[in-house]
Amino acid sequence: MEELPLHKAFMWLEPGPVVLVSTHDGTRANVMTVTWTMVRSFAAEFALTTGAWNHSFAALKAQRECVLAIPGADLIDTVLGVGTCSGRETDKFARFPLTPLPASQVGAPLIAECLANIECRVVEIVERLDLVLLEGVAAWVTPARADHRLLHAKGDGSFTADGEAFERREAMRPRLPPGV
Amino acid sequence: MEELPLHKAFMWLEPGPVVLVSTHDGTRANVMTVTWTMVRSFAAEFALTTGAWNHSFAALKAQRECVLAIPGADLIDTVLGVGTCSGRETDKFARFPLTPLPASQVGAPLIAECLANIECRVVEIVERLDLVLLEGVAAWVTPARADHRLLHAKGDGSFTADGEAFERREAMRPRLPPGV
Repeated sequence: MEELPLHKAFMWLEPGPVVLVSTHDGTRANVMTVTWTMVRSFAAEFALTTGAWNHSFAALKAQRECVLAIPGADLIDTVLGVGTCSGRETDKFARFPLTPLPASQVGAPLIAECLANIECRVVEIVERLDLVLLEGVAAWVTPARADHRLLHAKGDGSFTADGEAFERREAMRPRLPPGV
Repeated sequence: MEELPLHKAFMWLEPGPVVLVSTHDGTRANVMTVTWTMVRSFAAEFALTTGAWNHSFAALKAQRECVLAIPGADLIDTVLGVGTCSGRETDKFARFPLTPLPASQVGAPLIAECLANIECRVVEIVERLDLVLLEGVAAWVTPARADHRLLHAKGDGSFTADGEAFERREAMRPRLPPGV
């Protein structure tokens, strides 16, 4: 993996991809699939909607750390498997072909097979709103992956991968943050 | 436009598309481009990150209504134009080829050229977190549009349109909400 400057981490959430969230509860690592995420600022601040209905929520709350790992479209069936069972009964890193690697700043693992991994601290949990606010503290990319298309969920069991690309850097320049 | 049942409205935000947000301040309609949105529940509850730096924020706060309009990839240059000027100086519905249509429940307009329009009420504004919480109250789709690919922003001036589609309804069935 190569280090990704934190001011570019938002670019991995901005397109609205399916995300794997890894946690570690002090005993075991776990991973869940989420799509309800949002960028909150260019400074690697993110939100996700989750709550006690996800087994990972207890670890998020107790350890106040996680990794946002962005899978390529080639991982679709792993992502689905992870998303349709619970860490309550399943050791997901044992069951699915995902390799946990030590992170630099948090106890939750990086996922070797993902395109990008963002190590995050939990800044705040607003339980009333099922809202977890995160701040990236380190980030990594894995350029060697074969499939660089992000995966997008439609919510009904259908998904799309990134297709045609459009370059509009000049038109966007007035609104781009520094260094992007 | 055809009416879309509200329990399916989340499917238009779940994939993380670029979104147009229309507002009406009582005098004039306005529209902004946003990518920092999130689904909050299957019951057409959404969040967006915005604040006083967007001219539309004043109308959102005063009128407590908006429309989330989802453009197809064919609208990329309109979406960019809307996103790189401000309603402070510009009558965007006059300047860009977007047709405002009366909504059924809110004062903000639907946008005729979009694939879907979700009429929303503002449920809560958490100014401390730059967070606006929305609830869909009516929704519409326009099946006749030629380009049904959603548009995803990378944050650096590049965009992708939806590409390859994957059908995984059977695998997802245990986690699908009723009626989807």
